[in-house]
Amino acid sequence: MKEKVVLAYSGGLDTTAIIPWLKENYDYEVICCCVDCGQEEELDGLEERAKLSGASKLYIEDIVDDFCDNYIVPCVKAGAVYENKYLLGTSMARPGIAKKLVEIARKEGAVAICHGATGKGNDQIRFELGIKALAPDIKIIAPWRDDKWTLQSRQDEIDYCKAHGIDLPFSADSSYSRDRNLWHISHEGLELEDPSVEPNYDHVLMLGNSPEKAPDEGEYVTMTFEAGVPVSLNGKNMKVSDIIRELNALGGKHGIGIIDIVENRVVGMKSRGVYETPGGTILMEAHDQLEELILDRATMEVKKEMANKLAQIVYEGKWFTPLREAVCAFIDVTQQYVTGEVKFKLYKGNIIKAGTTSKYSLYSESLASFTTGDLYDHHDAEGFITLFGLPLKVRAMKMQALEENNDK
Amino acid sequence: MKEKVVLAYSGGLDTTAIIPWLKENYDYEVICCCVDCGQEEELDGLEERAKLSGASKLYIEDIVDDFCDNYIVPCVKAGAVYENKYLLGTSMARPGIAKKLVEIARKEGAVAICHGATGKGNDQIRFELGIKALAPDIKIIAPWRDDKWTLQSRQDEIDYCKAHGIDLPFSADSSYSRDRNLWHISHEGLELEDPSVEPNYDHVLMLGNSPEKAPDEGEYVTMTFEAGVPVSLNGKNMKVSDIIRELNALGGKHGIGIIDIVENRVVGMKSRGVYETPGGTILMEAHDQLEELILDRATMEVKKEMANKLAQIVYEGKWFTPLREAVCAFIDVTQQYVTGEVKFKLYKGNIIKAGTTSKYSLYSESLASFTTGDLYDHHDAEGFITLFGLPLKVRAMKMQALEENNDK
Amino acid sequence: MKEKVVLAYSGGLDTTAIIPWLKENYDYEVICCCVDCGQEEELDGLEERAKLSGASKLYIEDIVDDFCDNYIVPCVKAGAVYENKYLLGTSMARPGIAKKLVEIARKEGAVAICHGATGKGNDQIRFELGIKALAPDIKIIAPWRDDKWTLQSRQDEIDYCKAHGIDLPFSADSSYSRDRNLWHISHEGLELEDPSVEPNYDHVLMLGNSPEKAPDEGEYVTMTFEAGVPVSLNGKNMKVSDIIRELNALGGKHGIGIIDIVENRVVGMKSRGVYETPGGTILMEAHDQLEELILDRATMEVKKEMANKLAQIVYEGKWFTPLREAVCAFIDVTQQYVTGEVKFKLYKGNIIKAGTTSKYSLYSESLASFTTGDLYDHHDAEGFITLFGLPLKVRAMKMQALEENNDK
Amino acid sequence: MKEKVVLAYSGGLDTTAIIPWLKENYDYEVICCCVDCGQEEELDGLEERAKLSGASKLYIEDIVDDFCDNYIVPCVKAGAVYENKYLLGTSMARPGIAKKLVEIARKEGAVAICHGATGKGNDQIRFELGIKALAPDIKIIAPWRDDKWTLQSRQDEIDYCKAHGIDLPFSADSSYSRDRNLWHISHEGLELEDPSVEPNYDHVLMLGNSPEKAPDEGEYVTMTFEAGVPVSLNGKNMKVSDIIRELNALGGKHGIGIIDIVENRVVGMKSRGVYETPGGTILMEAHDQLEELILDRATMEVKKEMANKLAQIVYEGKWFTPLREAVCAFIDVTQQYVTGEVKFKLYKGNIIKAGTTSKYSLYSESLASFTTGDLYDHHDAEGFITLFGLPLKVRAMKMQALEENNDK
Repeated sequence: MKEKVVLAYSGGLDTTAIIPWLKENYDYEVICCCVDCGQEEELDGLEERAKLSGASKLYIEDIVDDFCDNYIVPCVKAGAVYENKYLLGTSMARPGIAKKLVEIARKEGAVAICHGATGKGNDQIRFELGIKALAPDIKIIAPWRDDKWTLQSRQDEIDYCKAHGIDLPFSADSSYSRDRNLWHISHEGLELEDPSVEPNYDHVLMLGNSPEKAPDEGEYVTMTFEAGVPVSLNGKNMKVSDIIRELNALGGKHGIGIIDIVENRVVGMKSRGVYETPGGTILMEAHDQLEELILDRATMEVKKEMANKLAQIVYEGKWFTPLREAVCAFIDVTQQYVTGEVKFKLYKGNIIKAGTTSKYSLYSESLASFTTGDLYDHHDAEGFITLFGLPLKVRAMKMQALEENNDK
Repeated sequence: MKEKVVLAYSGGLDTTAIIPWLKENYDYEVICCCVDCGQEEELDGLEERAKLSGASKLYIEDIVDDFCDNYIVPCVKAGAVYENKYLLGTSMARPGIAKKLVEIARKEGAVAICHGATGKGNDQIRFELGIKALAPDIKIIAPWRDDKWTLQSRQDEIDYCKAHGIDLPFSADSSYSRDRNLWHISHEGLELEDPSVEPNYDHVLMLGNSPEKAPDEGEYVTMTFEAGVPVSLNGKNMKVSDIIRELNALGGKHGIGIIDIVENRVVGMKSRGVYETPGGTILMEAHDQLEELILDRATMEVKKEMANKLAQIVYEGKWFTPLREAVCAFIDVTQQYVTGEVKFKLYKGNIIKAGTTSKYSLYSESLASFTTGDLYDHHDAEGFITLFGLPLKVRAMKMQALEENNDK
Repeated sequence: MKEKVVLAYSGGLDTTAIIPWLKENYDYEVICCCVDCGQEEELDGLEERAKLSGASKLYIEDIVDDFCDNYIVPCVKAGAVYENKYLLGTSMARPGIAKKLVEIARKEGAVAICHGATGKGNDQIRFELGIKALAPDIKIIAPWRDDKWTLQSRQDEIDYCKAHGIDLPFSADSSYSRDRNLWHISHEGLELEDPSVEPNYDHVLMLGNSPEKAPDEGEYVTMTFEAGVPVSLNGKNMKVSDIIRELNALGGKHGIGIIDIVENRVVGMKSRGVYETPGGTILMEAHDQLEELILDRATMEVKKEMANKLAQIVYEGKWFTPLREAVCAFIDVTQQYVTGEVKFKLYKGNIIKAGTTSKYSLYSESLASFTTGDLYDHHDAEGFITLFGLPLKVRAMKMQALEENNDK
Repeated sequence: MKEKVVLAYSGGLDTTAIIPWLKENYDYEVICCCVDCGQEEELDGLEERAKLSGASKLYIEDIVDDFCDNYIVPCVKAGAVYENKYLLGTSMARPGIAKKLVEIARKEGAVAICHGATGKGNDQIRFELGIKALAPDIKIIAPWRDDKWTLQSRQDEIDYCKAHGIDLPFSADSSYSRDRNLWHISHEGLELEDPSVEPNYDHVLMLGNSPEKAPDEGEYVTMTFEAGVPVSLNGKNMKVSDIIRELNALGGKHGIGIIDIVENRVVGMKSRGVYETPGGTILMEAHDQLEELILDRATMEVKKEMANKLAQIVYEGKWFTPLREAVCAFIDVTQQYVTGEVKFKLYKGNIIKAGTTSKYSLYSESLASFTTGDLYDHHDAEGFITLFGLPLKVRAMKMQALEENNDK
């Protein structure tokens, strides 16, 4: 009996060509696994396609809710953003996929897992660190980094497939390199490779309008959160995945969440991409809007540092590590009272706040207003400033004294 | 001869009422000083007004360029933003004003400086820490925190002025509490004191349109920076203050830079404000857009932490401290090569990137593309991942071994 | 019926004099509460003394185990050290005392809590922030900051007591100002107020020898930890408080844990103290010794930052805050596998490692040695360095190219 | 004419064997370069040895003062320590060596640089990142990672040398793996590879005594610093390298600066070493002792974070980067006033403070003492605490109110 490999399979040309290649070069039985994170790809007919290409089996695994609840929600709670802009859409999905691949590999008794990520990108790292952390004994095969892989273009792949009896209608034209899931879609390649070029959003965008094409009428939205987790949208309780789906529609319509970024990859180079994250952008902002009322200054400050750490960790594919767990434990404590309602208006790329309430709000109108009250009087402010400025004043006095001495 | 006090004077009701109050309660000669940071107030007739109110002298000091070059530019270079949103408009101006007040006080041989900030806000701290750091021997008088100050309303102040022979046409109606300078205008008070209420932007805004009222046509802008400092706008070299002025007009027109925030004050309470920073928002984003091409990942990460520190320091009024200087020294090194051109489009609240170039760009199309080259081959990626994931794999193997032992 | 105040009572002159003062100035019924954190003071006769001084009741509350388990252990797990040296002995005890005082106040229906900390120190802050966080409605009385308190010296206090019929044998001579609990003793005042003066350790030390007076023979100690918590000493399982007690004896004997520090107080000034923390110093080092084997580099690095945060928070008296809880949640995750045995030798102020073992050790002799093996080969190192150094090399190439262009 | 390679040469067996290997495998002319960082190796006869082994030339380059002034001093100013213990002895020397190798390579027109570091350690990274940053066009050869290198033991190397006509008296016995320079010596390998084993310090130590073998009499030392740089020792002005040399003698004698550490290497594994840094340990502590008097709390806190960053950067070999320069610029500002005198006693492994003075000291006896004065009165403390504790109290009140509502 042959040893088995589990292949992360999308049905596209790249991963299809890998099936015969794995059989030819490694003599494995190939188990395909298509992990659905909300990429909205055609799943009908995928099984025939995989089998026609030589796979012995296809798993289609829907992890959308797992992705939302266990990867997206912790990052939303944290407010994790990579390099000020990137909402980690691809990064958050990879560990969940890796986990599912390991699960299937265990079930099948497979000795190896194969993925189709290239040798230039971050995803190879994220897949492989996920697999190493969960199944250090399983061999990882990355054809694009393998000396035995000689296919250099889509046409090479099509020819290779044909030579192995796989005659499927793939186009030889390459488009943008894209990654899509429920949270986002990324676009790279073609003219985007030149950062001096303005993206042609009419070509690039898939999830919605540019701000300029968005409706002339804004639209109000309300959301509620409980302990940092979104629980309802426009008054209707929904699970997180449904909230994101709905926000994607709303955000896409109103031109929200389109970014154009040159980012630093883990592998040491810069890359340029356009990302659409319509629902995610709204969700993060709404969460932020609520937190403003609830977190004290010191917590907010340290949480910001932790959010940066989390963004780095997730971007680097280090999800299954004690450090990621520790950071999330920190975040969870800060979220205990992040409960309340936010209202905002979506309008041509803008998310405009329209009122926030929380029973845990630390905002106090009487405190903030210009008169004093029980909690606080003007003498307190004076005392505060005296001590707050003491080190600075002592230093200034010391320097003044030294200068006077020098003058003599 | 009487001792002198220097009063930070705006010509408004509050600071006008302070003149007779200082004379009555402290028996000082009052020297007024109006420090112009670009607040666009009426300066004509200010001298008569001050003298009519009992001041012996009025200084009008234009520090707009000092404010831009020595306070705004360091913060732009850093990308300093307080609590994710506030661009520090008021905070950056206070130390410059304090410095000028001290300068006038020294020139006049004054023993005290007086300011009209309230006992609830941050500005008292910023003024006073500035003064303490530069002139620890000078007494500070803050009437709003002074037991001898009994005026509780605008009407009280008007009555007090009248009783002291000052009959000026002040309105007893209060509006939003505002602070304006070249960088921004803040609005607080009235209905804004309730964070559940959506601001009425038609009433609030002074520097431009809301996104909804902005023109239907976007507008392209190009800017160049040298070593992190903006040097030209749409192809014309200008000094920083002129660039900000021009960007204010552009940004205001296109609905850029309006924020609605609940922030944590230094004095421990939350407050809610609406801030307009049209030019500043563009400037910060443009700078960020350029940095993306130039800074490496590690520098960007640590710079982000330093930017947060700087935002805290500036917000807290600790400008004249070794820590602020040290942070700025760090930032300056990172800015050496932040030189290049950015292009973007302003459209209804959006700043949309339209191309970035720099001779110091670390972006390399050949590196980022999907093929390998001289600098890097796929084996390198494999080796990198092996070592990058080593701690995680060693741990996983250890845990696996322990579990197997437990199973026995 | 009179309103009640709970007074933090030690039986010393200061807190004794406060009893009649509270009755005279506030007309309260005074409930004394002596909270025992291991200060080893005489408790016999304390009740008579309190009552003789006018208190209606004395509570003696032993919180030693609470102090150890809920305040010390979290700080040991974190490795929290203030300004590189101070092991937070006094800081960690204050919130526990505040909590107990609030508990007694609630039980007694008291309206106020009174403490004897001075207006210059950190302890007033720690007591009061603890009380505010747990019982914001309770009034706090700090006689040393109260205008009605006119006693300026020990002699004044003795006279005041006598005048109120309290004739107890207090000495008018002042010694060092000391604070002691199970974890440490601090010494301030007298000649220590001049940082240019070397402490006379023969006078100062109370818990043990200076290194020079310590025995000429070293002594081996072994300890085990489970999930970061010390569980046994020299092979004997003990509760944490007993481990600390025993380590205090060992450490004191061998001259361990004496520091001489100039520290920055919360209230903005520097102060100089000598602290003895014999057992605590050993405990922290032993924990550190074990962690070296277990924590990965990234976790260790971020944990160090969290430890600094915790030290700041605890020093500032902000124990009962969401931020402190969040930091501790982070730390707890890092401690899951900090289980194992450490051995070390105590010798004249030195803690010399003598071997460490843990079943969760990430140290691998085969990996660390100079030959390669399965997990790793030399090509991997080469690939790692290529990518690790890529940003740096790309920049260097860019700069080289620019220089060459300039040369032309 | 053959292409040239510059070989980092020590005269030891490893680098000697590399000479014929380079000629045989790369057909280069071999230029040896022995960079002297204070390793106290025999330099007499080195030239003959290099030439006898086939090198065409030997450079002996003394960079001790460069090492001290440009690498050690910045790290001392920062207080950079890796993983709480390691004073970066080897890490700081590598970039200086790399720089010198590049300089010689340029002078000789060499196309490659070769080093003898292994594929498991940190030093390969530090050498190579240094070279890449300074000369990205120069090829790097690391024989221990090269497939053509087949020598696996000292005996293999000796045999290889003999076969190539090099008959030198090398011993086949291996000892500890050591790295020495003016700052420190590291010991790895042999029994130290097992962290459960106590080091045999009698065998290991080379720079001085263990605490137990140190003299029974302590010894006082005084040092002065100017702007963070050590300038005199026991009253005698000396250059930094001489101060370190002298402190090495003093520290070695008194058993100072011996550490036993399990550290996390850059390449992802843990390693165990014993390091002796007698002078460096004293220097760092003395600097720290002085800073206590001078730095304010906020500066000290942020500087600590910067020191950790610097330690990471230096450990990782990223000396020649903008981030390292930026961190050092930060540090330099903090050091402006770190000027003064420290006195301490060395005694059996202990550095015991014996008095510190500085004209820039922020310590003020009158402020720190228990009475109040001009700068500060007890009302100020009360006001400070009210505001400092305000967020905490407001939250507590809010929670109390919510609980009361729930109770109804």
